[in-house]
Amino acid sequence: MSPKSISSLQNPIFSEYKKLLSSKGIHRQNRFLIWGEKFVNEVLAENPETVEALILGPGHKLNLAAKSIDRIELSNELFSELDIFGTRFPILVCKVPTILKLQHHEPKGLELLVAVSEPSNLGTIIRSCASFEVSKVILLKESASPFHPRAVRASAGNVLKVNYEIGPSILELSPELLKNTLALDMNGENLAQFKWPKNSFLLVGEEGRGIPKEMKIKRIQIPSAANVESLNAATAISIAMYSYYVRRVLN
Amino acid sequence: MSPKSISSLQNPIFSEYKKLLSSKGIHRQNRFLIWGEKFVNEVLAENPETVEALILGPGHKLNLAAKSIDRIELSNELFSELDIFGTRFPILVCKVPTILKLQHHEPKGLELLVAVSEPSNLGTIIRSCASFEVSKVILLKESASPFHPRAVRASAGNVLKVNYEIGPSILELSPELLKNTLALDMNGENLAQFKWPKNSFLLVGEEGRGIPKEMKIKRIQIPSAANVESLNAATAISIAMYSYYVRRVLN
Repeated sequence: MSPKSISSLQNPIFSEYKKLLSSKGIHRQNRFLIWGEKFVNEVLAENPETVEALILGPGHKLNLAAKSIDRIELSNELFSELDIFGTRFPILVCKVPTILKLQHHEPKGLELLVAVSEPSNLGTIIRSCASFEVSKVILLKESASPFHPRAVRASAGNVLKVNYEIGPSILELSPELLKNTLALDMNGENLAQFKWPKNSFLLVGEEGRGIPKEMKIKRIQIPSAANVESLNAATAISIAMYSYYVRRVLN
Repeated sequence: MSPKSISSLQNPIFSEYKKLLSSKGIHRQNRFLIWGEKFVNEVLAENPETVEALILGPGHKLNLAAKSIDRIELSNELFSELDIFGTRFPILVCKVPTILKLQHHEPKGLELLVAVSEPSNLGTIIRSCASFEVSKVILLKESASPFHPRAVRASAGNVLKVNYEIGPSILELSPELLKNTLALDMNGENLAQFKWPKNSFLLVGEEGRGIPKEMKIKRIQIPSAANVESLNAATAISIAMYSYYVRRVLN
């Protein structure tokens, strides 16, 4: 397919791509962007079926095996508007994978329930999921989209390596599901001595708010200096996933 | 002291404050900014001696115990330029604490050697240091400043809770010091079984580059899924600090 050249800010194709810089645009178009040489090449090699188009700046070259992928050449000005991380490398337009509704309340292995509203925190968590073989991330109503630019970026190419499901609000989780759910909290059983169940949901609350006090749920605590309120949400949940991985996956 | 009102973009006091949004300005003026209601109040209560001035937007009120602190009232337009995180709360101007040069090569407890160039990663690491009682952070030449706005923000109020020293480049660390230094690496002893020495430096390499291959240093590895290259730098080092804290500080 011969490339399509665009140099007008008013071009409708470009306008649509620009909307993919916001959560709303991603949700409406069901597409998202991927930046960065390493991750672009990885997705082209491992998930070519998700790629719809390749956006090139002036002078960019990239050979594609898949012939079905559109090639869009942008002028310098237009490319810069999309290259928000300054990668100076072709950008991928990908289809958001099909995400089913959460139907089960019996987890298999460790499954995350996330209500993380900061996209880069969510992306960092997804990156850790890939390291620690947590294969399912259930997005609660409060959660950012894993396909938001900052989430995609922070996931370091791992956004397509986990499976997602859509869950309800953190306040609407069923009692059956909560029976099988753990959460990090300042008051809970010490993680260092905790005996992880083989199968569990791990609930990640909203930054700053944490887990509602009245929620009937088993709580575990990362031991830390008494005067410090808490770790970064992504750091804390990564430590918990590491602990599970070492004790339950590797052992 | 009665407040000083400023509404001109050309005002020299405002211009100086604006330069504190960049590393260069912080370095030249030896001052930095702190944002956010919780952290501003904490620093006023716990470290009032470091506070030089309080920057207020229209309608902001904040009672100060310390009478020596300047009060600067900015017009809406000017305040917005400094309120880069959209906190809508008075901003503190603080003195950078005195930072000495690294002189020792015998660590006491766990001390970090950091060459982290992304300010928000450095801030997240500092936040974890406060949780896991790592009291010394040695800033190598490659490191971002802990007083960069994004580092201050990511530290969640902990930027003044650790002690800093200035070290050389990661490439110029002395053999005596390297003898007492550990680093995370994809090839190293398994962290889950690692017997932590009581006293050690922990070297945090540059994002994406890691630790130079030829460096003679003891390496430890965070076990993870084989096909995933690495965790976020701040996440990885936090997991290592957690491991040290649980095994060597609490036990």
